[in-house]
Order: sequence, then C-alpha cells, then structure tokens
Amino acid sequence: MGGDRGVGVTVPAASRILARRSDLELVLVGDSDRIEPLLSRVPAGNRGKLRVLHTDTAVAEDDRPGSVLRSARESSMFLAADMVKSGDAQAMVSAGNSGALLMIGRHLLKTIPGIHKPAMVATIPGASKQSFLLDVGANPECDAQHLFEFAVMGSVLAESLNRAPARVGLLNIGAEHYKGTEAVREAAEKLERCPAIDYVGFIEANEIYHGQADVVVCDGFVGNVTIKASEGVANVIRNVLYHKAGPAYFNRISRFFSASIINSLTMQVNPERFNGACLLGLQGNVVKSHGNASVLGFCHAILEAANEIDNQVPRLIANKVESIMATA
Amino acid sequence: MGGDRGVGVTVPAASRILARRSDLELVLVGDSDRIEPLLSRVPAGNRGKLRVLHTDTAVAEDDRPGSVLRSARESSMFLAADMVKSGDAQAMVSAGNSGALLMIGRHLLKTIPGIHKPAMVATIPGASKQSFLLDVGANPECDAQHLFEFAVMGSVLAESLNRAPARVGLLNIGAEHYKGTEAVREAAEKLERCPAIDYVGFIEANEIYHGQADVVVCDGFVGNVTIKASEGVANVIRNVLYHKAGPAYFNRISRFFSASIINSLTMQVNPERFNGACLLGLQGNVVKSHGNASVLGFCHAILEAANEIDNQVPRLIANKVESIMATA
Repeated sequence: MGGDRGVGVTVPAASRILARRSDLELVLVGDSDRIEPLLSRVPAGNRGKLRVLHTDTAVAEDDRPGSVLRSARESSMFLAADMVKSGDAQAMVSAGNSGALLMIGRHLLKTIPGIHKPAMVATIPGASKQSFLLDVGANPECDAQHLFEFAVMGSVLAESLNRAPARVGLLNIGAEHYKGTEAVREAAEKLERCPAIDYVGFIEANEIYHGQADVVVCDGFVGNVTIKASEGVANVIRNVLYHKAGPAYFNRISRFFSASIINSLTMQVNPERFNGACLLGLQGNVVKSHGNASVLGFCHAILEAANEIDNQVPRLIANKVESIMATA
Repeated sequence: MGGDRGVGVTVPAASRILARRSDLELVLVGDSDRIEPLLSRVPAGNRGKLRVLHTDTAVAEDDRPGSVLRSARESSMFLAADMVKSGDAQAMVSAGNSGALLMIGRHLLKTIPGIHKPAMVATIPGASKQSFLLDVGANPECDAQHLFEFAVMGSVLAESLNRAPARVGLLNIGAEHYKGTEAVREAAEKLERCPAIDYVGFIEANEIYHGQADVVVCDGFVGNVTIKASEGVANVIRNVLYHKAGPAYFNRISRFFSASIINSLTMQVNPERFNGACLLGLQGNVVKSHGNASVLGFCHAILEAANEIDNQVPRLIANKVESIMATA
C-alpha cells in the first residue's frame, strides 16, 4: 500500500517478478478491494504463487513513527512484519514510511542479540565493485558502540554480497586520530582492538567514492547528509550540462552517463529513493523500497529481499557478533 | 609560512595584490631568510607597503592543535594573530594548519560576546547568488545554542556580502519537526522564536544547491562531510566523463564546466582547499586559505580578508547579537 503510487506499482511488480523467479511465493498485504482488480493480468500459471492478505488500514507517509505502534497494529506494514516474525514469510518489502517501518521492525522482529540499533544501508557504486555506507538515516544519534556494531553488520553484508573480505572505514573529517567526535574516536579504538574486522581507519567524505573501504560507517544523520549531498551535486551537474550545452548536445553527452555513477547516484543511492535498502540488524529480512519507485524499481527491491533470504544475512550477522563476543 | 608551498605562494601573491589594491599594506610574518630573496621581484613603488616580521618558527601541518598554545607562541601564525589582537593588523590570512589557527584565534582574539564558538564558513555557488554553509569543520560537536549562534553569524555575513535579507535554514535529514538530532530540533525552536532571523525551516542536503536558503546551518562534522561528499561526487563525474568520453571529447565537454558549479565545487568549496574561508565569531578578521592554494588562490584569500575589513563583519555580528539579547 505504501509509496507514492501504492498498489499501482507493487502489484504489477509482484506479477512481473513471478514470471522471472519461479522459486518465489508472494503475499500482497493490503486492501483486497484495490489489489484484486489488478490481479487479472497475472498469468494463470503464476496466480497460485500470489496470495492477498487483506487489511483496510495502512500507515500513511506522514504518520509519526512514534505513534504507529499504538495506532497501526492492523496496518499492512504491521501485518507484513508480523508474518516475518511468525515465519509465514522470510522477508518483507515496503515502499512506505521509513520511520514507521523501523519502529515496527524493531518492535516485532527485535534486533539481533548484541546489536542495539538496526541500520539502513546504502550501496555506493564503484569502478570495480560496490561498497556500503551505513547508517543512512535510521539512527540520527549514535555512540561508539552503535558505530562499532554498524561496522560488524556492514562487513558481514559486504563479504556476503561481494564474496570477498571487507575493509571497514569510519567516516571522519580528517585522517588524524584526534579528529572528529568522541563517538567516532572511541569507535576507532574499539575497531582497532577487534581482530575480526579489517579496520582501515578514517575515511573522509570525498574518499567514499575512491574504494579504499568496502564499508564506510557513520551515524544516520551524517550518512543521510552524505547521500543527499551527493545526489544534490549530481543533479546540479546534470542541470548545468543541460542548460549550458542545450538539449541536443546534452543528449549526446548523456550517453556517457548511462549506467554511470551519475545515474547511480541520482537514482539509486538516495536512501529515500533507494531500490531495496536493507534494514540491517533485525532478526528478519526487511527491505525498504523508495517511495517513488517504478514497477521496475520495486522489482529490484523484491529481488534484494530474495537475495537476503538466500544469503541468510541476519544469521551471518548473529554468528559474527557471537564470535566477536566470545573472543572479546 | 603555511600551506603546501609556503613562501613560494604567499610572497608572490602579496606582491601581486599590492599591484591591484593600492589601499592595502601587507606584513609578511615568517622566516626573513626565506622571504627576503623573493622580494626582489616586488616593484620598487610597492616595496614600502610590504613589511617582514621575522620569526624562524612555524606551526607544522601535523602539529596537534591542542599543543600549539604551549609550543608555538613564537610561530608566524601566533605572531600574525597577535598583530590582529593589538590592532597592528586589521586581518590575518593563513594557509596553515586549520585546527591550530582556530586554537590560536580563539586564544588571542577571543570570541565575540554572546558567541561561544567560532565557525568556518564555506561559500556555496548558486545560479543567482551565493549561499553560505556553516560550520564546515571548526566544531565537530555542537549543541542547540551553538547552532543558533551560527545562524546569527551566517545571516550577518550573507546580508553583508549579498546586500539583501538572508533566509536561514537548518540542515536536517527530513522536513518534519520530529526529524534529526535533539540539538537540531532545539535549535529550530530557538530560531522560530527569534524575530531577528528569517528562519525558513529544515533544509535537506540535496536542497543546499537549490537556493531556498541563503544560510544553511549545521555542526562542523556534518558541514565538513557535506562539502567533501559534494567535492567527491563532482570529481567522480569529471573522471567518468573523461574516461567514457575520451580526452578529446572531454575537452569539448569541459568548456561547459568552466566557471560552472563543478569547478566551483571541486576548487572552491572544499574547506581544506577553500580560498579564503572566514573564521566567523572572533573579535578580528581571520581568513583561512587552503593549503594547496596557487598564487592566484592565495590572492583571493587576501582579497577576502580585505573584504571582511571593509564590511566590518565582526562588528556587525556583535551588533546583531547585542540586539537579539536585548529583545530576548
């Protein structure tokens, strides 16, 4: 039900995914009066893999996250998370209110033992491989322990998805050990003492795109600003090119942007518009699709959820946390 | 003495500025053995406007700011700030260690009454007029009162330089009143209650370049990350264009970048490489040139200092703070 276009995007996306991934079964949680009419286009052979769980309430985009646990227990978001909790579903995907999703996810699924706060992860496109930035908005205020836990979770995700050891950096405003906030400096000390993490030191924001680290850790305020400032600049540059070069010339230039980092930055990296940002640290797979995702975008978010099921990311995180605690 | 190339940049810049601005007199504070040989190229008519104040010690780029007050009292940076304090100079310009400059500036010049922390200001290029972002690195940790004071100082600077009323926004991770950190939310309440400031609400990082606010306020960690992430993306896009389009084509495209925001972002906005970032809030004019400034770049920093003298920015800030306190 969530996102700018609700069932107009989510239902066609579900239908399209079933045509590609015969191993998946999907449950559409929401208003059946609005969902059912859209199911006529689902090929008969796939209809059995699609189920509707009806509810006529939904979390609104402007609902205050703090109030959803009181007022939204019958909402589609709550019921979907409850399915993940009960094991009726292995993952949930939502294009709705991020803050509410975080609140409901924490309440129903709980965090992994040893993890205090779930974090939202953004993928940073790179020349050779992707890297990961977290947290990008779930936790505006973090202490050193939270940052340390983000480093653990991020390294598990990066190793699982890149299938290679992950180097972890802390986002800071300089390379010297005395730079930054107390939380960042203390987190650096914790990471230096932890042999299970390949900690490479402080990373400045302009270096995020250089690939020195596979995982860059920061609090949710700083991460959100990093991603949005990056998107803002990429858009400004697009506009400068368009207006200075003129539309015809711009079209010629544009082909250099296709599949390039500019598209990646403007389309993928913004956490609000990110196709399948995972909420890491919960005992269950929760994927946030951006609110204005297209059908194709929402398909990516569903595939991301399938990916997390396949990789068993929450279990890998739990194992890593346990082994770190055992050696600490 | 500061910056990557020391007197090789600062002395020729001083010479060049005297040719342009006959109203200025410059004092070169540093090692006369290294400065004097470079003065032979100064036209005889301007030689009288250039004085050398000798000292053979200088703050190093890697000196820890916390130690400079004990160890660097004979340094060129300390002596230059002392000249501003005594009134022998109306402004100082340094390409040296930012943290040390902040420490020495606070110690000798003190903050303006009512201002607890000086802030470093970056200029954000815009389509119609420039806007200002502060703090971009002087204070990694700020409370609501500090942010409020940055808003006051920023609005004075913007009104003085743009010669128009300034709209002030707070950098946050969303527009809703409950978003962000406690410090940011409290600062918003303070600004809403202050009739002397035209407060326009929360600004997200991607909106900084849209011009809804003339002044955007944040703590020094967030501001530094904003600027450096912006620079990082601009550089990545340059590289993508260069490698995808090839050098010849890139040169054709490049002319659209000249004097555009990309150049502005990569060359001007980075606080470490910023040509003449003012340190706002001190009882005296202090301008930080970037460490790798060219002669032309250092000229800009000197002109920025002259600009601040002309505009009497510290006095304007003191007046505004006084009038806000009187009506509070």
